[in-house]
Amino acid sequence: MYRLVLVRHGESEWNKENRFTGWTDVALSDKGREEAKEAGKKLLEAGFNFKYCYTSYLKRAITTLNIILEEMNLLWLPVEKTWRLNEKHYGTLQGLNKSETAKQYGADQVQLWRRSYDVRPPALDESDPRHPINDPRYQGINEPGCAPATEALKDTIERILPFWKSDISKKLQQEGEVIVAAHGNSLRGIIKYLKNISDTDIISLNLPTGIPYVFEFDENMKLVKDYFLADEETVKKLMEAVANQGK
Amino acid sequence: MYRLVLVRHGESEWNKENRFTGWTDVALSDKGREEAKEAGKKLLEAGFNFKYCYTSYLKRAITTLNIILEEMNLLWLPVEKTWRLNEKHYGTLQGLNKSETAKQYGADQVQLWRRSYDVRPPALDESDPRHPINDPRYQGINEPGCAPATEALKDTIERILPFWKSDISKKLQQEGEVIVAAHGNSLRGIIKYLKNISDTDIISLNLPTGIPYVFEFDENMKLVKDYFLADEETVKKLMEAVANQGK
Repeated sequence: MYRLVLVRHGESEWNKENRFTGWTDVALSDKGREEAKEAGKKLLEAGFNFKYCYTSYLKRAITTLNIILEEMNLLWLPVEKTWRLNEKHYGTLQGLNKSETAKQYGADQVQLWRRSYDVRPPALDESDPRHPINDPRYQGINEPGCAPATEALKDTIERILPFWKSDISKKLQQEGEVIVAAHGNSLRGIIKYLKNISDTDIISLNLPTGIPYVFEFDENMKLVKDYFLADEETVKKLMEAVANQGK
Repeated sequence: MYRLVLVRHGESEWNKENRFTGWTDVALSDKGREEAKEAGKKLLEAGFNFKYCYTSYLKRAITTLNIILEEMNLLWLPVEKTWRLNEKHYGTLQGLNKSETAKQYGADQVQLWRRSYDVRPPALDESDPRHPINDPRYQGINEPGCAPATEALKDTIERILPFWKSDISKKLQQEGEVIVAAHGNSLRGIIKYLKNISDTDIISLNLPTGIPYVFEFDENMKLVKDYFLADEETVKKLMEAVANQGK
């Protein structure tokens, strides 16, 4: 049996301030650190024993992973970081307050940028300091598409899936237990693929933060079951919250 | 020009308790975390911009590195962990209180185990839970010598040097700036090699904790200069402390 765990990072400083984050490298808030610690405790209690870890190039995901590994006494594990697990790029919206943006562009337009499958927010100019070509961490990566000026959910999913197929899924088969600490939209890509979710339905999947999401596979790498690692009451509340977010 | 930075981890929980640590995986104390934070601040102020990081399999070194990278806003850097950078293995002394051990075996014997170049502390039985063959992290590593039952300083140096030659030095030449967060004895190995220090003299080199030690190389990888990243007063005090420790 193979076990994959996906964890969406907890609250960041900009979540608190209600700003579009995307590829902006914002730190976890204290609450976000606490969420990560809880996730680590739950994974330890449930007997997980990872062999390999993946995370993004963004510190809110990296720190989430580090805190989990610290709790589990697994800091020595190999950790691979990739831009492909980064959050969806929000183009010129990055840094803007969400309600101010709604006032400026109208709530419908903002909803489209946030919740459509293939509509991209306005693209950044290459001269904009927020453009990834101006960030040293994305230089020298010889992979097409690693410096987007903006992304729709579709784009995010299209850049994470090749990495799932070429790297994460293979490592899972070799090692048996793998953890991925990343972001709402890059994780949606993996979940969409694993559960065959349609382009329309994936939009309403709102992954709860800091709750380990476990996928179990049989010896043929067929998905057997998936569940959140939280008590029934918490899961129920989270499910309701997810459902309400979809409305 | 190439720049290598070596950092010895700060105070651990067992340093406080005056116990032999070796390969025991003990956490940093709050003071140790503070030392790491200070090291990160100094490296940032001095304009360091690492491209690649090395650390050991032990969390006091890994956490030191993570805290430094967090301070420098470089958490996204690749980090490679290796058992070869682990502290010297202290055999059956691991876990024992240093002064109690001196009472039991005599101060001279303990001094020999701690400060000689090639005398090993008593070896652990393979059945001992402290033996690395009983620790999952050292299983599946196909490298001879990766599960020592005890080590003299000579052994520690002999297992770090091949890694310096095959990996760290090459990465330094490719990338220009590299940081290594590790332990007193594994770092002694690298310093002994870089500065051509004799077997006798290396014993009295007591690397200060948490102070970045910078090595600058010219375009032919010839060592040009080496210095601690601390103000003159601190360096002087550290130098005196090192000198006194040698007495």
